[in-house]
Amino acid sequence: MATFRTVKGFRDFFPEDCALRNYIFDTWRAVARRYGFVEYEGPLVETTELYKKKSGDEITAQLFCFEDKGGRNISLRPEVTPSLARMAGARQRDYKKPLKWFQIGPCFRYEEPQEGRSREFIQFNADILGDASPGSDAELVALAVDVMLAFGIRAEDFAVRLSNRQVWMQFLQDKQVPEEQWSTFLSVIDKIERAKPEETATKLEALGLSTDEVRTFMAGVDGNHPAFAALRADLEARGLWHYVRIDATIVRGLAYYTGMVFEVFDLRHGLRAVAGGGRYDKLCALMSDGAADMPSAGFAMGDVVLGILLSKTPSAQFGITEYLNAQTGVDAYVVVADEAQRTPALAAVQALRAAGLRVDLSMAAQKVGKQFQAAENARARFALVFGAEYPQVQVKNLVSREQSLVAADSLVSTMQEALKQPIIGPLLA
Amino acid sequence: MATFRTVKGFRDFFPEDCALRNYIFDTWRAVARRYGFVEYEGPLVETTELYKKKSGDEITAQLFCFEDKGGRNISLRPEVTPSLARMAGARQRDYKKPLKWFQIGPCFRYEEPQEGRSREFIQFNADILGDASPGSDAELVALAVDVMLAFGIRAEDFAVRLSNRQVWMQFLQDKQVPEEQWSTFLSVIDKIERAKPEETATKLEALGLSTDEVRTFMAGVDGNHPAFAALRADLEARGLWHYVRIDATIVRGLAYYTGMVFEVFDLRHGLRAVAGGGRYDKLCALMSDGAADMPSAGFAMGDVVLGILLSKTPSAQFGITEYLNAQTGVDAYVVVADEAQRTPALAAVQALRAAGLRVDLSMAAQKVGKQFQAAENARARFALVFGAEYPQVQVKNLVSREQSLVAADSLVSTMQEALKQPIIGPLLA
Repeated sequence: MATFRTVKGFRDFFPEDCALRNYIFDTWRAVARRYGFVEYEGPLVETTELYKKKSGDEITAQLFCFEDKGGRNISLRPEVTPSLARMAGARQRDYKKPLKWFQIGPCFRYEEPQEGRSREFIQFNADILGDASPGSDAELVALAVDVMLAFGIRAEDFAVRLSNRQVWMQFLQDKQVPEEQWSTFLSVIDKIERAKPEETATKLEALGLSTDEVRTFMAGVDGNHPAFAALRADLEARGLWHYVRIDATIVRGLAYYTGMVFEVFDLRHGLRAVAGGGRYDKLCALMSDGAADMPSAGFAMGDVVLGILLSKTPSAQFGITEYLNAQTGVDAYVVVADEAQRTPALAAVQALRAAGLRVDLSMAAQKVGKQFQAAENARARFALVFGAEYPQVQVKNLVSREQSLVAADSLVSTMQEALKQPIIGPLLA
Repeated sequence: MATFRTVKGFRDFFPEDCALRNYIFDTWRAVARRYGFVEYEGPLVETTELYKKKSGDEITAQLFCFEDKGGRNISLRPEVTPSLARMAGARQRDYKKPLKWFQIGPCFRYEEPQEGRSREFIQFNADILGDASPGSDAELVALAVDVMLAFGIRAEDFAVRLSNRQVWMQFLQDKQVPEEQWSTFLSVIDKIERAKPEETATKLEALGLSTDEVRTFMAGVDGNHPAFAALRADLEARGLWHYVRIDATIVRGLAYYTGMVFEVFDLRHGLRAVAGGGRYDKLCALMSDGAADMPSAGFAMGDVVLGILLSKTPSAQFGITEYLNAQTGVDAYVVVADEAQRTPALAAVQALRAAGLRVDLSMAAQKVGKQFQAAENARARFALVFGAEYPQVQVKNLVSREQSLVAADSLVSTMQEALKQPIIGPLLA
């Protein structure tokens, strides 16, 4: 029988992958908290109806949906916003508005795996619910920018491409395009830079428009357009406007956006969008049948494209290395040089751990050389040798190679002091 | 149309629930790291075959399993050990043994929701792979104990009920019960304290045994039994043996355990086991068709019973409160008392956030009273008022009610100093 493998599009996180994943989680979380966002989480499974209500029946083609044994049609969540709208709708009276909520967790889409897309991915979602002001839009763009900067991705490496659907709605009204055709039009704009010009022209003609008039209009939409005035003033005050490129081709595929829309792109590698979002003033009302009418905006950032970008960005490596150094390895490895001393060695291990130190030891009797090898493998800063000298313990600094003898009963305080010192240099008096 | 609800047995984590969940995660993670464990994560979905291989066809009754659109039979994971065995088997040559690995993440079981059981739950798994020594068993029991203590659950509130399947295997050999009936026998023992005595007697008779001889044997299995000698010496050296109660009825339902087995129980509320695990020396070989023959042991702790126990344990509240105080709320709330000062106020917000402070402000123009109310709601320690005094900023300590004027350009350094002070008392010179 063949060895088991992961299901297509799903991922194993071996320790080195998991550490990088945790670095991404901790960075998302730290920046969101600096912005006063609080964390929530929805269930990984929802009724399929929830997603159909938001996105229409076509969504099921991309869903991991199935019937459970109770005959319920349920789905692994493809995104978190429907759960957020459901949750906020159900409990909106319990929270002061605006709600500034963020979430980190897995999502699932049934689509062909390729670079930047897997069937399981992790999203960071940040949303502001119950506030319609451009200040909310600016707060979200600022958060997205600061998350990128926190990862060591610099101003020259990324940009926020931003637009506002209202600009197109005004255009469509002026051109008297019937409202039921607006979403068709927006999907043409969404693809205009990638589609063949003939195809675009044909589709626009069907709407009574020409490529020329659309392109001329687009060229006139820039940072001076009144639709962006309040957002621009806010982001200029924050010193962040220079990250923004007004780009009328950004409309976002999802039908529910009503105002500002944006995507975060790298500028060097031509990757898919790192993040995207916008204003969705009518979604909460739709999902709660009018019970919770909260104008809202938000964005999501996935871990897959971000991870590729981090791996390609030299300035992002310092933060990763610093995190891994702080999070991995142990403070001390206890070496039992004489099995007669295993009892006090085990007592010391527990006393050091109880004091908050990260301590490892060999599970069974082993040669001293093997134990020192294991200490190196565990990236221990110190080896604590319990042997013939007991009740003195040999403390070896595995970085500086200094060593000294310490009385077993002052080992905890000695080690606490030693670990406060910088890693390189004399650690023990 | 009715409002959307969560799928039966699934959970929403509103911010207050999510904070408690994060406290549980961070505590698990911190203690596991003190023990030198490193974190990994498997996929949430595996082939159904993987679970059948480990647990037999009956497992599918409890699985969220379904056919995906590519015709694969896949399952939401009911536990993590099969993924661990698959992963460790695939990459065992890349890691030094023993592997001390831990994991935190959701699992899914299709069973009737009741107290202590939901269909989605979060597990903490800790395993040591590639080591057969009683030292590994002791390390795992010690970790389970220290996790409980880290949650503020005290020695008088919980115990580790522990046994070793080898004890029963010896008994069954002595009684010449054929090996193919051993798992039937163990399932009788597993239920012996809950089942009707007549039923137990009937089942034992079918195996050629009497309740009396079984009970007499069980009564003789205590801490002096040689099967526990090495484990006992180790845990005594660590000062942890007094948490252990030898209990021969503990066999664990799962067929794959081969040696030491244990469960962690609360002693006051009669809840289900908080954690359980044991030694499974043959599982990795089974799951890799012999390619990775790693004797292993591990345990899992779920968040549901633990959460109930925490809520019922007064001594557990201090740690929760301390965590929530540190993790929630913001350092400062910026009050824009005069909209003419919104620009420098926004600049200050970004400068303070860039310095690592948690800062919030009102998204849109609002009355000053409303903004102070929002500052209280956000549990801000300080309000920073941008108004007529600008370029002086009014700094109000919302705890002590002290206030002072600070030049806008020294606001960051002033606030960094102020936040180093204890919360109560004079915070600003």
